[in-house]
Amino acid sequence: MTTTRYKVTIQYDGTNYSGFQIQPKDRTVQGDIEKALKTMTKGIAIKLQASGRTDAGVHALGQVIHYDYPAMIPPERMQQALNSLTTDEIAIVKVEIVDETFHARYFTAEKTYQYRVNTNQVVDPFRRNYALHHPYPVHLDDLKAALTDIVGEHDFSSFCAVKSGRENKVRTIYEADVIWNEATGDLIFTFRGNGFLYNMVRILIGTLLQIANGRRPVHDLARIIAAKDRQQAGPTASPSGLYLLKVTYKSQAEIQQILKESEQWRRENNGD
Amino acid sequence: MTTTRYKVTIQYDGTNYSGFQIQPKDRTVQGDIEKALKTMTKGIAIKLQASGRTDAGVHALGQVIHYDYPAMIPPERMQQALNSLTTDEIAIVKVEIVDETFHARYFTAEKTYQYRVNTNQVVDPFRRNYALHHPYPVHLDDLKAALTDIVGEHDFSSFCAVKSGRENKVRTIYEADVIWNEATGDLIFTFRGNGFLYNMVRILIGTLLQIANGRRPVHDLARIIAAKDRQQAGPTASPSGLYLLKVTYKSQAEIQQILKESEQWRRENNGD
Repeated sequence: MTTTRYKVTIQYDGTNYSGFQIQPKDRTVQGDIEKALKTMTKGIAIKLQASGRTDAGVHALGQVIHYDYPAMIPPERMQQALNSLTTDEIAIVKVEIVDETFHARYFTAEKTYQYRVNTNQVVDPFRRNYALHHPYPVHLDDLKAALTDIVGEHDFSSFCAVKSGRENKVRTIYEADVIWNEATGDLIFTFRGNGFLYNMVRILIGTLLQIANGRRPVHDLARIIAAKDRQQAGPTASPSGLYLLKVTYKSQAEIQQILKESEQWRRENNGD
Repeated sequence: MTTTRYKVTIQYDGTNYSGFQIQPKDRTVQGDIEKALKTMTKGIAIKLQASGRTDAGVHALGQVIHYDYPAMIPPERMQQALNSLTTDEIAIVKVEIVDETFHARYFTAEKTYQYRVNTNQVVDPFRRNYALHHPYPVHLDDLKAALTDIVGEHDFSSFCAVKSGRENKVRTIYEADVIWNEATGDLIFTFRGNGFLYNMVRILIGTLLQIANGRRPVHDLARIIAAKDRQQAGPTASPSGLYLLKVTYKSQAEIQQILKESEQWRRENNGD
C-alpha cells in the first residue's frame, strides 16, 4: 500500500494528560492523535513517532511527530481533520508532506525547552498549571552566572532521573538563559541543546532555584556536573512550568551521510 | 461575640467549579472559602456575602466578598491564611477591615465584566478555558457601532436568561467597548454598568458575534432591546470567556442616605 509521510507540529496543554506516550489505560497525547487518525482511516491503525516523550503535566508549543498515512491528503485538510477530531487540549499547528527519510525522533538536530517560574507572593489562579509558583527571593545575577556552567558539552548524569537507563549521558547545551519580567514577576528560562536526558531540565531548575536564593554557591553546578551523581543536584521541579518549545532537524545532506554510514556499518558487521 | 467585618477581593479560575454559590454536593468557590474560614475558626461556621454569583466556568479577577470573623486578625495574616487554606484556583488578592455598614452585595455602585474571544483559526490549547474560540470573520466597525446601542439605561429583558425571576430588568450601562489585538487575534470586550441580569453579558456576546459577521443588521441590538423578548436575541456565549473584572461600592455618604431612607420606609410601613 502506498503511504504518505506527514511531519506534523503540535501544541498541547499537558495538564490533564498522563504524558505524551501511549498507555493502555491512561489518556495520553499520542493516544488521542492515533485515535483521531484511526477515525480518519476508518479503522486502520497508524503508529506515530515523536521527537521524544514528555511527562504528565509537561506542555508543548512545538512538538514534532511523523506518521505514514495510507493516502495522500492535502496538508491543510489533514490539519483541519486532526484539529476537529482531537480535543482543544491539542492544536495541530503545521502539517507538511515529507520525504520517507524524515524521522521525527532519529534525526533531531536541536531541541529547545522553556521553563516558566512565577515569583509573585500570591499565586495567579490562571497560571497554576502553566508556571511554577515560587514566591521566594531570586538573585538574578547569581542565576545568570550559574547558567554559564551548563553551556557546552558535559556528562549530565547528575541531572538525570535515576530510573533512566545506562546510555550515554553526554549532551551539548548551546544556550542556557533566563529572562526576568518585572511586570509579571516571571523568570523565563530557555535551554537549547542537541538533546536532553530524562527530567534534565526539571532537575536543573530545581537546583538553579536553590542557587538563586543563596542556598547553594553560585558555581555549584560545575561541581555537581563533575560529580556525576544525581544525589548532588537539587529536587525535580514541577512539570507544570516546562514547555517543549521547538525541535529542529538535520539537513538532507546530514541525513544522507548518517544513512550511508549506518548502511556501511551494517554491511561491515553483518558481512553482507 | 465581637466580630470583625472583612472585605476581601479575590480572583478565581472558574473552570473546575460549579459556580460561585455554595451547593450541598458540588465544589463551589463560596464552599471552598467558607471551608477555609471554618478551619481558621476551629469549627465556627462563617457565612460570606459576595457582590453576586458567577456561573460554572466563569472567572473572576476582582470579585468582592465580605464576612464577619469572630476575632480581629491583621489583614495580611488573614490573606496568608486564606491563600494557604484554599487551592491555587482561588487567590486572595486584597483584605481590608471595614465598617459594619459595608455589604458586598447591597451597596455595589458599578460592576465591570470582560469577555475574551479568540478568532484564530486554530485553537490555543492553553486558553481553551479562558477565551471563547470563534474562528470566524469579524467586522470590527460593525461591532463598535452595535456596542453603542447598549450604552445607557435600558430594559434588558431580552438579554436575561428565561429562568430568572420577575424583578426589575432596567440597568444602566456606562461603557460597552471592544479592543482588537491583531497580534493575538483577540477581541476583548468590556462592559461596565450599575448591574447585570442573569447571563446578560453572555447573551450580549452571542448576539454581538452574529452582528460581527453580518448574520444580523448592525443596529439589531436596538430592536432587540425594544422587543423585551429573550427569543429575539442570540445564543448564550460560553462561560469560559467571561471575567468579573471589578466591583466598586457606593460612598459612606450614599450608604448612610440609603440606610436612612430604608429606616424611614420601615417606620412608615410598620407604624413603629
